[in-house]
Amino acid sequence: MSFSPLVDRLLETLRVLPGVGPKTAQRMALHLLERDREGGHRLAEVMARALEEVGYCRRCRTLTEEEVCELCRSARRDERLLCVVESPADMLAIEDAGGYQGQYFVLHGHLSPLDGIGPEDIGLDQLASRLDEGGIEEVILATNPTVEGEATAHYIAAQLEGSEVRLSRLAYGVPMGGELEYVDGGTLSRAFNGRLPFSTE
Amino acid sequence: MSFSPLVDRLLETLRVLPGVGPKTAQRMALHLLERDREGGHRLAEVMARALEEVGYCRRCRTLTEEEVCELCRSARRDERLLCVVESPADMLAIEDAGGYQGQYFVLHGHLSPLDGIGPEDIGLDQLASRLDEGGIEEVILATNPTVEGEATAHYIAAQLEGSEVRLSRLAYGVPMGGELEYVDGGTLSRAFNGRLPFSTE
Ligand SMILES: [Zn+2]
Ligand SMILES: [Zn+2]
Repeated sequence: MSFSPLVDRLLETLRVLPGVGPKTAQRMALHLLERDREGGHRLAEVMARALEEVGYCRRCRTLTEEEVCELCRSARRDERLLCVVESPADMLAIEDAGGYQGQYFVLHGHLSPLDGIGPEDIGLDQLASRLDEGGIEEVILATNPTVEGEATAHYIAAQLEGSEVRLSRLAYGVPMGGELEYVDGGTLSRAFNGRLPFSTE
Repeated sequence: MSFSPLVDRLLETLRVLPGVGPKTAQRMALHLLERDREGGHRLAEVMARALEEVGYCRRCRTLTEEEVCELCRSARRDERLLCVVESPADMLAIEDAGGYQGQYFVLHGHLSPLDGIGPEDIGLDQLASRLDEGGIEEVILATNPTVEGEATAHYIAAQLEGSEVRLSRLAYGVPMGGELEYVDGGTLSRAFNGRLPFSTE
């Protein structure tokens, strides 16, 4: 059954949201129309404004409507460490985990020659000038442990060859709290190859 | 961690959508900002327009931006049957089930004196004039099988006492395809009290 052209269009358009199928779209549309028109108006307005105004931080390329994001402006972050991630979500995950106190650089993707995504599309020219400014002593390559992520990390490492910047990457291995029998084979081999002396301290 | 005032505001505002918690809001916001700004703009626009323009059908009070909805305008619906439901979602469920070919009347709620919701708030004056026009032979009270829904049905039934309109309600009983052991006690007693002669045809 269809309600009316405009309600049907709302149901269809709500599906641009990730994880929203026909049933959820219907529940959302009826909720807004029947019970929270004010909230819906607010959402439509904030969404339009955010999509219009939010761009990339001039320094780390994370999402922000400001010229330079709060983290880049903070005096409390270690300016000698730079962590390169593929997406703002990765940066968020690292921040939520806590412990890391350096700066970031967000690629918004990875190299993908077949899709026509080259070094400049992921800001590598900008990364290079950031490093040229000096002050950064270590670059942590925290791209995803996928074929594309590792290729991107290797490309950046090659670019930095000869510079004095130290390069590192996240440790790969068995995730904490998991059970070995459910860990995939690739991860297990990595964990074997990267095994460390057992410490009893 | 917080992104920026505007992104944080988007995360917070997305939660007006039912079933959207902090994690889902974050996934939605990042998806729109990183991968589908065009879709997001379309959604914000359609949402604002729908919330502005969609009102109630003048005849059945379902959600529509038209004066009279498509179903009320259809020549193929039986004008002698009127099914009274609490919400457009109920109407949708009945239409999706198929079989019913009459008209509808949507209350958008139920009587709730404690919340100050009286007969006029759920359109009962409009229902009365609709019935006064004549032509309707049977009113099917399909309010929810809850205390409030049944109280509302009884109120409407009392209003119609003395008129020639036939009143009916949906059958209560054991849901099809379920297992008896999981059916709640109230439903089971209803099903016993409403038991029918067994037919071998
Ligand atoms: Zn920044
Ligand atoms: Zn209608």
